[in-house]
Amino acid sequence: MPTLSVDLGDRAYPIWIEATLQASLSLLSANMTKMLGSQVMVVSSGPVAAYYLESVCSALQAPDRQLDVVTIPDGESHKTLSTVESILDALLQHNHDRKTTLVALGGGVTGDIVGFAAAVYQRGVNFIQIPTTLLAQVDSSVGGKTGVNHPLGKNMIGAFHQPQAVLMGLDVLHTLSDRHYCAGLAEVVKYGLIYDADFFAWLEENAAGLLVKQTDLLEKAILRSCEIKAAVVAEDEKESGIRAILNLGHTFGHALEAGLGYGEMLHGEAVAVGMLMAVELSHLLGYVPVSLVDRTHRLLVALALPVTFSHELAVADVIALMQRDKKVQNKQLRLVLLKACGEAFIATEFEEHLLDLVISNRQNALSETGTP
Amino acid sequence: MPTLSVDLGDRAYPIWIEATLQASLSLLSANMTKMLGSQVMVVSSGPVAAYYLESVCSALQAPDRQLDVVTIPDGESHKTLSTVESILDALLQHNHDRKTTLVALGGGVTGDIVGFAAAVYQRGVNFIQIPTTLLAQVDSSVGGKTGVNHPLGKNMIGAFHQPQAVLMGLDVLHTLSDRHYCAGLAEVVKYGLIYDADFFAWLEENAAGLLVKQTDLLEKAILRSCEIKAAVVAEDEKESGIRAILNLGHTFGHALEAGLGYGEMLHGEAVAVGMLMAVELSHLLGYVPVSLVDRTHRLLVALALPVTFSHELAVADVIALMQRDKKVQNKQLRLVLLKACGEAFIATEFEEHLLDLVISNRQNALSETGTP
Repeated sequence: MPTLSVDLGDRAYPIWIEATLQASLSLLSANMTKMLGSQVMVVSSGPVAAYYLESVCSALQAPDRQLDVVTIPDGESHKTLSTVESILDALLQHNHDRKTTLVALGGGVTGDIVGFAAAVYQRGVNFIQIPTTLLAQVDSSVGGKTGVNHPLGKNMIGAFHQPQAVLMGLDVLHTLSDRHYCAGLAEVVKYGLIYDADFFAWLEENAAGLLVKQTDLLEKAILRSCEIKAAVVAEDEKESGIRAILNLGHTFGHALEAGLGYGEMLHGEAVAVGMLMAVELSHLLGYVPVSLVDRTHRLLVALALPVTFSHELAVADVIALMQRDKKVQNKQLRLVLLKACGEAFIATEFEEHLLDLVISNRQNALSETGTP
Repeated sequence: MPTLSVDLGDRAYPIWIEATLQASLSLLSANMTKMLGSQVMVVSSGPVAAYYLESVCSALQAPDRQLDVVTIPDGESHKTLSTVESILDALLQHNHDRKTTLVALGGGVTGDIVGFAAAVYQRGVNFIQIPTTLLAQVDSSVGGKTGVNHPLGKNMIGAFHQPQAVLMGLDVLHTLSDRHYCAGLAEVVKYGLIYDADFFAWLEENAAGLLVKQTDLLEKAILRSCEIKAAVVAEDEKESGIRAILNLGHTFGHALEAGLGYGEMLHGEAVAVGMLMAVELSHLLGYVPVSLVDRTHRLLVALALPVTFSHELAVADVIALMQRDKKVQNKQLRLVLLKACGEAFIATEFEEHLLDLVISNRQNALSETGTP
């Protein structure tokens, strides 16, 4: 299976996508024993991670290596500075030095937390991502964004800190719940919308097969997603420009997550609804035809993703929460919109009532699908 | 007065050393209005900072700029993640976006805390250092090391995050207590020992004048210290090699600070005692003559710095705390020692009983000077 590389000069790193996690772990042992050094701490979270913990540990074991394991609570509500502190405590209690390597075994939340702990422990140590959810594989494990939430906003505390390697096994997705798997597909759809119209069309054709985790389709979907992510990150590591397009639907989505309370909607589910809002706003502003709104809507439904959010959250509250987005500059909301399928841009000019409309449309459409 | 520059490519920044803080602030207004942008938060700590807060704020005020002020508690015991959190809370409560600039107005502790808050707020925002102590001026404000303490070790949580500018006024040192002023002189002595034998000799000749804050001497001492620091940092920003020599006496000193309880000895005071231990160990290992131990001892005493530590702290505890130092690799303690006056290196080979001896010598010499 292919090895991708995130091309960041002296911070370049490989992404190994293999049929099994075991095969990825073998690549790690073969290529990185020296980098791993004499201390490793595996930070694991969630049932999938627990299932693979033993094989990860035996792959990392070596005669002269201190190997410690820490388990952190699962879920967005635990993506806090205090969970980071618990990892830092463990590192110090076990005398890990500046040459240690952290291993993040879990979903996107785990990767973000562990990556941030690695960024700030002794001013930065090495870390390796072993994503165990589709969302983490196609999105959060690649690109070096790490961080935690603050009660007043998502991912408000963090750092750019690139991993030394990302290890993926397609087999781990079979131990993932359907709901978490589908949430990951939302980010896959995103890559089509922002960067590759052909990929979007391919997703439409193969939605049924993807929904049942057909291996060949899954491989292509993950590979193409990671290729696009790696290309965008290599061009703009610290998000001073183009990287922001990776946030299609995220400003809306983050507001939904925060407004409903973290954990109520999964990140990918909130992004699905948010993307639909963004595509509809792009249409109302005259950029894309209504057919793209319909296609996006149909694809999300075909992938068992939500297209609405609970009316318990007021539209005005969603907009207020959006104002706290990291892309806001000089009080000016900046949204990723589409000029066409496969072409995104940052918009700053849009009338407030249109924003209100596209959010209300997703709230009022409760009868279309059940809420997640 | 001279402008120095820390030569770090696209992250290069100026150090303005002026007779008055007001003159430095004028340079900031003249050169950096655009960078400052529409949001600024001044974080201030300690009595000296309080004294200058009004003039700093009026220099930073502008018609379209939101200017907020936060005060944090002073002292090493407050250099914690929870103080950083209080700054992050304030930034979010006042809706500061990713283009905001933090201003650190205070001593070294303030600069380290605010720099770290700037490093992690929305994955990194700009910040400016306005050091109000000698120690912060000659050492901690330059070079981008930021961070906070953990109960199990000093500066264990942090990041490399370079400021956009460092502003100094010599006049602020006249509002500084003698004890804090002298603590800063310890770092000045360090630059002579590790990098510049002529500067060390000049300090010996001018100790009396420096002790009474004679302006021309002070200017030369600060300028030469910052020059050396900037040169070393430009060569090795992330401390993969030579930068470690800036830690002469610090592994010993940090252990004394932690062992006695943060705040008992000032950082500079602990470094003074630690440097003497390091010079004596360098002598016992055959690198430097005993005369350099005597010269260092005399210079520290002439600058009203301590050369001993309280016998309430056991030597074994000091050594145990040293094992937690960030320079430890593979359980191997690494100490900055001297090959000659003005030439430092990293030593990993030294017998435990010699380490024990140089620490005991500083503990038993209680009668030489009063403890601080």
